[in-house]
Amino acid sequence: MKVLVLGGDGYLGWPTALHLSDRGHEVAVLDSGVRRGYDVELGVESLVPIRSLEERVAAWAEVSGTRIPVHHTDLLDADAVQQVLADLRPDAVVHYAEQRSAPYSMLDRAHAVHTQHNNVIGTLNLLYAIGAVDPDIHLVKLGTLGEYGTPDIDIEEGWLTVEHNGRSDRMLFPKRPGSFYHLSKVHDSHNIEFACRAWDLRATDLNQGVVYGHHTEQTARDERLATRFDYDAVFGTVLNRFTVQAVLGEPLTVYGSGRQTRGVIDIRDTVECIRLAVENPADRGEFRVFNQLTESFSVAELARLVAGTHPGGAEVVHLDNPRVEADEHHYRVVSTGLPALGLQPHLLADTLLDSLFDLVRRHTGRVDRSALLPTVQWRLPAHATAPAAEPPGL
Amino acid sequence: MKVLVLGGDGYLGWPTALHLSDRGHEVAVLDSGVRRGYDVELGVESLVPIRSLEERVAAWAEVSGTRIPVHHTDLLDADAVQQVLADLRPDAVVHYAEQRSAPYSMLDRAHAVHTQHNNVIGTLNLLYAIGAVDPDIHLVKLGTLGEYGTPDIDIEEGWLTVEHNGRSDRMLFPKRPGSFYHLSKVHDSHNIEFACRAWDLRATDLNQGVVYGHHTEQTARDERLATRFDYDAVFGTVLNRFTVQAVLGEPLTVYGSGRQTRGVIDIRDTVECIRLAVENPADRGEFRVFNQLTESFSVAELARLVAGTHPGGAEVVHLDNPRVEADEHHYRVVSTGLPALGLQPHLLADTLLDSLFDLVRRHTGRVDRSALLPTVQWRLPAHATAPAAEPPGL
Repeated sequence: MKVLVLGGDGYLGWPTALHLSDRGHEVAVLDSGVRRGYDVELGVESLVPIRSLEERVAAWAEVSGTRIPVHHTDLLDADAVQQVLADLRPDAVVHYAEQRSAPYSMLDRAHAVHTQHNNVIGTLNLLYAIGAVDPDIHLVKLGTLGEYGTPDIDIEEGWLTVEHNGRSDRMLFPKRPGSFYHLSKVHDSHNIEFACRAWDLRATDLNQGVVYGHHTEQTARDERLATRFDYDAVFGTVLNRFTVQAVLGEPLTVYGSGRQTRGVIDIRDTVECIRLAVENPADRGEFRVFNQLTESFSVAELARLVAGTHPGGAEVVHLDNPRVEADEHHYRVVSTGLPALGLQPHLLADTLLDSLFDLVRRHTGRVDRSALLPTVQWRLPAHATAPAAEPPGL
Repeated sequence: MKVLVLGGDGYLGWPTALHLSDRGHEVAVLDSGVRRGYDVELGVESLVPIRSLEERVAAWAEVSGTRIPVHHTDLLDADAVQQVLADLRPDAVVHYAEQRSAPYSMLDRAHAVHTQHNNVIGTLNLLYAIGAVDPDIHLVKLGTLGEYGTPDIDIEEGWLTVEHNGRSDRMLFPKRPGSFYHLSKVHDSHNIEFACRAWDLRATDLNQGVVYGHHTEQTARDERLATRFDYDAVFGTVLNRFTVQAVLGEPLTVYGSGRQTRGVIDIRDTVECIRLAVENPADRGEFRVFNQLTESFSVAELARLVAGTHPGGAEVVHLDNPRVEADEHHYRVVSTGLPALGLQPHLLADTLLDSLFDLVRRHTGRVDRSALLPTVQWRLPAHATAPAAEPPGL
């Protein structure tokens, strides 16, 4: 199939492009370069050096014999996006091209606005481009499990049959997102569901858990193919950050009690989930949602696992939680759609965390220790000491 | 109380400002003028001539002895909005400052993007301004019943206790909005709920039905105080449009079967609902939702009512429905919050539709008949003939 990967220069977009290319799909990538710009803005870098997108695709051509065309395009440029789709006529568009950090979105007003504008308007432009070029194009959109928050009921795959006063309806699962970033994905989901309903588009929304790991079968073939590895408190995902802290001899920083539970997934499973979604498209008019995770752990469990596996051990410290989130909560997430398509998960217990420790050791000289600690506060700074109100509506 | 009315130059914002002023509140208005710009863009005008905002407030000062300060400010200008709040320090902000037409949002990509950008980012700026200036300011936000769509269950007031697999949680009522405009309000609701939860703000979200009528107790005192009266197919609400069609001897244009049912409310009740919400603020941290309607009618019933009341009668015609919406559906909307605060509804059966006919008759010379017919199509133009897919997920 012909697949366009949006955000194809990112942590997951790049390995996804390689995985699809390796499995025989005709892949092109589109990226605005904004993710590398965030590094410059924040003064941090991927722990593992990464090549420019041009060097990456050249290396892949060398390694695989397959050329991946690159489009330097921003989804905010509606005409350009439509032109790329019209020229390429892909069967599927895999959409990673969003600002994906919750702390970044909570930095201040400007970053909240940037996140919602970039993500929501970019996706809106994409929906119109698909509608104009070919409504048969399958949109595979990356969402996040964080859209759901931590409701006191089981989390279904995007839809829920709601029973109320003796009647029932199949409705979008009610969301309780925990940052302006997570909200932007909720907004996207609503916009996309409407486009499927009104325009008869086809879309798969993948509500993904926290991704860990670095290598995939394809990126491991040549160091020039490496994807980024973020360890900083703004863009670094929790398990990756813990491995860096352990290797550096820094304490693993758990926010709050650490009893918050999160769905997680190995990067190798992420790219495989995308392949499965692309090769088994949603129907016309269907807004299909999968929860993309393989296991759930509490943050404290992840810290204990890293501390227990690291040869030198590691201290675990608890910081005041900068986020506003439930400390202890029910967490049971249904995830049957992707296994039904054939997903064979890599589980964390079987993963060689050793290989992650090795990776970090080779690059410790590149770590900025100050970037490990949270600087973004969810609460209002001036009013953080105001007495807590009653929880709304209880 | 000190109240700032955003969008205070609009159809409802202006009468709301007068009503609150008349009831002894210290009122200021803020408006960017964008609504009058839409008239210029679309080549239509309010049926009833309206004065400039400066003439309006001068007339109100003359009639009432009370001066309403005006701020020519756009919510997209975050610094200016924060400055207005800091200077004024209102107890409540009533937020009408959004693009409010579903057809306008469906004109094309640019109008969809304008609507979501204007509404969502404007409200985000406002939330940050309240957080920065004084989180005690009560946000009274206009939403729409159209956020809910027409689910096959009863529509509760914003929240729903969901029972699932033997557990339950109080969650935001799942939404199924029918246009990019309605979606923008759903996005707003999610953003505001989060701000209440994370920042301990206080907000009331008023999901309003279709408003009809023209005069309020205050606007009727002087013709210079008149609010706008839209009859065109883009901005005109259905009952107002039907009265114009009846007076002109044009057929009343019902979209589809007309069995679509909608909640409605008299403009005099709208302004009273706002007063009640302002004078009975939500608690800190509370995201309070009221459904702001007094009755429900099918579109065909409204047409029959107008045809039956109009002295010369009226023909009712059914057009292909340009919208994508359920033709026949369950519709039961809970609305107990505002009556509990003291709302005494004006019901449509008791309303002098005669006075609306009179109003229209005085201004028939100003009607552009071509503006009465729908030009905005919800479906994709090039692909409207594609075979209908199975309804998603059934």
